[in-house]
Amino acid sequence: MRLGKFLLIALLPSLGIAQQKKLTDYVNPLIGTAKMGHTFPGATVPFGSVQLSPDTDTIPYDFNGKYTKTVYEYCAGYQYKDKTIVGFSHTHFSGTGHSDLGDILVMPTQGKVQLNPGTADRPQDGYRSPFSHDHEEASPNYYKVKLDKHNILAELTTSTRVGMHRYTFPQSADSHIILDLTAGIYNHNDKNVWTVVRVLNDSTLTGFRQTNGWARTRTVYFAIKTSKAFKNYGAKYYDKEIPYKGFWRKFNQTDNFPDLAAHNMKMHLDFDTKEGEQVLMKVALSPVSMRNALENMETETPDWNFEGVKNAGVQAWEKELGKIKAVMLNEADMVNFYTSVYHASLMPTVYMDVNGEYKGLDYEIHQAKGFTNYTSFSLWDTFRAFHPWMNLVNPSRNADIVSSMMAHYDQSVLGMLPIWSHYANDNWCMSGYHSVSVVADAILKGIYKGDADAALKACISTANARRYEGIGEYIDLGYVPDEASTSSVSNTLEYAYDDWCIAQVAKKLGKADVEAEFTKRSNYWRNLYDEKIGFMRPKDRAGKFRATFDVLDTHGQGFIEGNSWNYSLYVPHDPKGLMEVMGGTKRFEGYLDSLFSMHLPDKYFEQTEDITREGIIGNYVHGNEPSHHVAYLYNITGSPWKTQERVRQIIRHQYNNGADGLGGNDDCGQMSAWYLFTALGFYPVAPGDAHYWLGSPLVKSATVTLENGKSVKVIAKNQGEKNVYVSKVTWNGKEIKDYKLAHADLMAGGELEFVMSRKPKK
Amino acid sequence: MRLGKFLLIALLPSLGIAQQKKLTDYVNPLIGTAKMGHTFPGATVPFGSVQLSPDTDTIPYDFNGKYTKTVYEYCAGYQYKDKTIVGFSHTHFSGTGHSDLGDILVMPTQGKVQLNPGTADRPQDGYRSPFSHDHEEASPNYYKVKLDKHNILAELTTSTRVGMHRYTFPQSADSHIILDLTAGIYNHNDKNVWTVVRVLNDSTLTGFRQTNGWARTRTVYFAIKTSKAFKNYGAKYYDKEIPYKGFWRKFNQTDNFPDLAAHNMKMHLDFDTKEGEQVLMKVALSPVSMRNALENMETETPDWNFEGVKNAGVQAWEKELGKIKAVMLNEADMVNFYTSVYHASLMPTVYMDVNGEYKGLDYEIHQAKGFTNYTSFSLWDTFRAFHPWMNLVNPSRNADIVSSMMAHYDQSVLGMLPIWSHYANDNWCMSGYHSVSVVADAILKGIYKGDADAALKACISTANARRYEGIGEYIDLGYVPDEASTSSVSNTLEYAYDDWCIAQVAKKLGKADVEAEFTKRSNYWRNLYDEKIGFMRPKDRAGKFRATFDVLDTHGQGFIEGNSWNYSLYVPHDPKGLMEVMGGTKRFEGYLDSLFSMHLPDKYFEQTEDITREGIIGNYVHGNEPSHHVAYLYNITGSPWKTQERVRQIIRHQYNNGADGLGGNDDCGQMSAWYLFTALGFYPVAPGDAHYWLGSPLVKSATVTLENGKSVKVIAKNQGEKNVYVSKVTWNGKEIKDYKLAHADLMAGGELEFVMSRKPKK
Repeated sequence: MRLGKFLLIALLPSLGIAQQKKLTDYVNPLIGTAKMGHTFPGATVPFGSVQLSPDTDTIPYDFNGKYTKTVYEYCAGYQYKDKTIVGFSHTHFSGTGHSDLGDILVMPTQGKVQLNPGTADRPQDGYRSPFSHDHEEASPNYYKVKLDKHNILAELTTSTRVGMHRYTFPQSADSHIILDLTAGIYNHNDKNVWTVVRVLNDSTLTGFRQTNGWARTRTVYFAIKTSKAFKNYGAKYYDKEIPYKGFWRKFNQTDNFPDLAAHNMKMHLDFDTKEGEQVLMKVALSPVSMRNALENMETETPDWNFEGVKNAGVQAWEKELGKIKAVMLNEADMVNFYTSVYHASLMPTVYMDVNGEYKGLDYEIHQAKGFTNYTSFSLWDTFRAFHPWMNLVNPSRNADIVSSMMAHYDQSVLGMLPIWSHYANDNWCMSGYHSVSVVADAILKGIYKGDADAALKACISTANARRYEGIGEYIDLGYVPDEASTSSVSNTLEYAYDDWCIAQVAKKLGKADVEAEFTKRSNYWRNLYDEKIGFMRPKDRAGKFRATFDVLDTHGQGFIEGNSWNYSLYVPHDPKGLMEVMGGTKRFEGYLDSLFSMHLPDKYFEQTEDITREGIIGNYVHGNEPSHHVAYLYNITGSPWKTQERVRQIIRHQYNNGADGLGGNDDCGQMSAWYLFTALGFYPVAPGDAHYWLGSPLVKSATVTLENGKSVKVIAKNQGEKNVYVSKVTWNGKEIKDYKLAHADLMAGGELEFVMSRKPKK
Repeated sequence: MRLGKFLLIALLPSLGIAQQKKLTDYVNPLIGTAKMGHTFPGATVPFGSVQLSPDTDTIPYDFNGKYTKTVYEYCAGYQYKDKTIVGFSHTHFSGTGHSDLGDILVMPTQGKVQLNPGTADRPQDGYRSPFSHDHEEASPNYYKVKLDKHNILAELTTSTRVGMHRYTFPQSADSHIILDLTAGIYNHNDKNVWTVVRVLNDSTLTGFRQTNGWARTRTVYFAIKTSKAFKNYGAKYYDKEIPYKGFWRKFNQTDNFPDLAAHNMKMHLDFDTKEGEQVLMKVALSPVSMRNALENMETETPDWNFEGVKNAGVQAWEKELGKIKAVMLNEADMVNFYTSVYHASLMPTVYMDVNGEYKGLDYEIHQAKGFTNYTSFSLWDTFRAFHPWMNLVNPSRNADIVSSMMAHYDQSVLGMLPIWSHYANDNWCMSGYHSVSVVADAILKGIYKGDADAALKACISTANARRYEGIGEYIDLGYVPDEASTSSVSNTLEYAYDDWCIAQVAKKLGKADVEAEFTKRSNYWRNLYDEKIGFMRPKDRAGKFRATFDVLDTHGQGFIEGNSWNYSLYVPHDPKGLMEVMGGTKRFEGYLDSLFSMHLPDKYFEQTEDITREGIIGNYVHGNEPSHHVAYLYNITGSPWKTQERVRQIIRHQYNNGADGLGGNDDCGQMSAWYLFTALGFYPVAPGDAHYWLGSPLVKSATVTLENGKSVKVIAKNQGEKNVYVSKVTWNGKEIKDYKLAHADLMAGGELEFVMSRKPKK
């Protein structure tokens, strides 16, 4: 890999000029763009609606709705290995394992108008261009690349709702900007439901794109302005049939026709350009209307000041990153740390116009009253560490996220909080109902200022959605039966944890009956523990465990993204209860030891989703989420030193500052949030419990500035690459013996001091 | 035909009880439902958004976007000859020659759930039912039919935005209401763009249907409530592929799943019913949102009072019909007269919610300020007599229609007034830009109270839309060249007339330059008159008339819905100029005489669109519009008696009170408006000229109550079936010698007295 800039940064300290660097200089958006990280390298502000990034491949147009490896690779549109860029689109998931978005793809070109993207093998057949990482630069809110075929330099930056492009063209009477409204990520046949473009004048167009993808239907409205008037423009429809075509043909709809509408449409804007002439373009998005997209543009980017927009975004990033001032062992770690903060500040995204309007789950336009509305909730992933991370460094934003979830609930005809929602749709991906965890953690940490009783009601309603993936039988039988769901065990374990969250909220709000009911449900994990084999195991409606069962296999065994070996540890709310059930301290510690040290045979690894071979340690799969709390469990077996050892091993083994620096999908910031907590020395094992469990910090020191004005300073005395063990830890001078730390204590401000050692404290 | 009720009405006078009848009793909505009339028999209030009517056939689902005879027959969804009813849908065009709408089709059934409609030949294979006209009743705002297969009595009524259904079921544990969201008129493959249904509770659902048909895309939002809770409901998707189906399957989306979305979807609501149990249903529509549809329902039909809703609509009709009190020669004529008023009060339809919101041509939600927004403007037809009729009896409504057109213009990225627009789309059907005529007539008659300068600007902008069907070359060459349009002559003649309208407005507003420019253009009809053959004829760009040319052929000769014989007379704004060009009075009268008396060979008739054999007199085609003014032209040849003779002949020949009572498409009221003016004895030969030309009244007497409180009384002394000639005519006692009547005189109120005679006054 050629991450030239970052090598330079790594060298800078030796040149004695490190102190001039900004935090944004440590962020490398290319980390995670190789293999399974599924991050994107493009430009965005923190949690921006527009995340403007190059797409290096699109799915072949004859793809027939089957979920393939190819689809999977391009969840974020970009793979570091690729040699061509198709274009720049304005919406991207960061780190997901399923795909959608990639809306409003544009590409500057030169020469003959080509509306077909061409293929990676034969870019000359289309508008795509070869490029080289040597001529590519990615940093917070800025992306630059030379498009070799077209001899065009493309630069991208954004405000929250507007992408700004700056294209430096060669001299040409045939310069173009291609607008491919058929392009998109997961672009199966008929993904496009409908598209519209209205050309308002010689430099302004508006439109929308409505799709049927992972979101059942989703409409992205846009407004586009170019800094230079186009001399000509054209469109082509790709519809299979056009009803009453005769009337449509009253106009020549191919050239300079401003009132375009079809299922599938591509456009070109044509320019004369001088050598080195810069043409700028603004693309504003809205979830509501073209009118709002224009208003977003006029409000956020009233002029053509590319540097100004870029710098405003960089300042926003400096502010976001600056909430934690970390000192690491080396510059490479600085890059990892701040890129993790960066990756944990991309999603969810703002889903609301500057005027406060957004489209709800009920397809209606709503006004967000007293909160910013967000979308793209990858909750099965993010409830674990990402949302707790937000509750620490970004609590008012997380409160808005909870408000957004409550709005979703209010608009839900199912009476449910989101499962995995994006763009006013729920795609019902993964297991559990983990909004409940996010809501509970925010209430129990005092972060959500809304109506807690209403929030509890929403949680209960979600937990009682009997028709959803086995919930009814879970309530009736005490577990999700094998027959009801392909992930009956995952669901049972996760429902039980979520139910415990509900019980905690009920307790806080003094609802004893609810607390009792959900405390009872929170124990249902016990019903699927098969003590004969010592693992969680699917059980049928008759109460019989499944006969043929493989504890190493990830597929078809009643789990999702995890095998029984990993998943059997998923009782974050009652690890001591689990330890007891599993045979007590010693057997439990032995189980953990085996997990980390055994060899997972290749045939099982090959079935493991979403991770590289580097994404596992023994049979411990860090690239997927269910085990994210597991390394911390040694704290209750009397061997905290093993937690310290393992978390340091994981952070060193699973994260690096190359393009392949993430061992699995970043999953909307969850992998990065795990890194951040762990680097600071503590982790939220069970969100909803307002305590953190201690591990082994990676920072030398760090200061977290809290929203309440206080700060938390983490100091790791005697920190070093080999000094992974904690010989002593104090909070404000007082020794912590139980390796736990209360969120409330942190909120009061103070110092968390670790004394590191090369030797474990056994 | 079995129009039992109407035979009875016809007999009533002889029983001496005629005086008890209401005007609505004279309306027979079944007139025009056979053959080419393309009217619908269902329930509606005047200009109602919901026009709820039975559909007797749907287009086969494998229809591949080709415009066929079958599509054509079902423009209004209903053909009198048919033996089965597919269901009841909520939107219908009245009298058009192209099709769309038929939204939200519902059908009450009994027995096994069937989601397939079945075929007319084998209704037992689907949900459709045989029916008999013996058990059918149609009257203003009420439709009733017995569904024989299901043994269900269906009754329909409406308010402006709500359809109310009353179904009387037999005893059954298997009673259903089918909701077929894939059904529609002109239902080609993939007509459905997207559909959504949300089941809010056990008796309420909301949703929308977005289509791609004659309107490029069009979304109809709805809300449905049933008077009785459904015990169960279900849905079926018919999509070719469902992306990420795995997640969709987390719910059983077939039974009782409330959050439905797909391209193609059908539903069933299930009930237990007792013998004779009535289940009522309300279906409210909105152009804007489901929320607005619910609000429309709650506002217009807050309860379940079917009779109340029906009676309110009947009262609205009594008021609408009562604007003219006519006394006819016989009861059959009474039916024809009031059914014509009825048919001239169906379209355009209100396109706005009770809260004033509507969706604009720009896809944005607008608030109608100071006017009611209307849609479905069949302008090539309706500018001739329908809008002038509105200016006489319904001027404030026509002012709102002009305001709606101006809103369309303001929202148009083409800078054009509507051509043929419906549901926030322009379908660009037919020739000319006749909004201009409607706007001009409303301004010149003092009816439009908005900004006349802005309206003139909109007219000029439309007339200068160079890219639209030859307008650019028309401006440059003085005619639309043959190469530029398949209807180059029609367009030239109609543009010239429209330009004259613009000149009249410019004159009134004192814009001499505009007046001069458009007066010049209004003479461009002269450029296509070929004096060698005495007909209008296509001319190429080089200025040469087309070599091979057939003056009798309707197709491929440069005209649309008319041959050169008929169309050559289309210079309504300068008939004297035309007469001169055509060789003077005598030759011109000879031309007219030939038109009415020649025989149009079968081979030409067969190519004639939209009309039955009865729709022509000689070669005069009344079933299409271009000749609607022609019979009045004898007034300038010195033979008004021939006008009198011909208009009486046409009114007797082309209109009757059977299901086949219209000789051609009613065309959104144009055919009926011709009848009404002619029956009153005067006709607007050239809208934009605020004068009427006199003919031969059919009424014995009639009183038109004007909006300004004055009234116009028409008296035909000595009226009789054979007394078709006018021996004398006076306005307020003063003899009219030029057979012209000023609109302004009518507005002042008074008496128009014809003295009828069996003998022509030569």
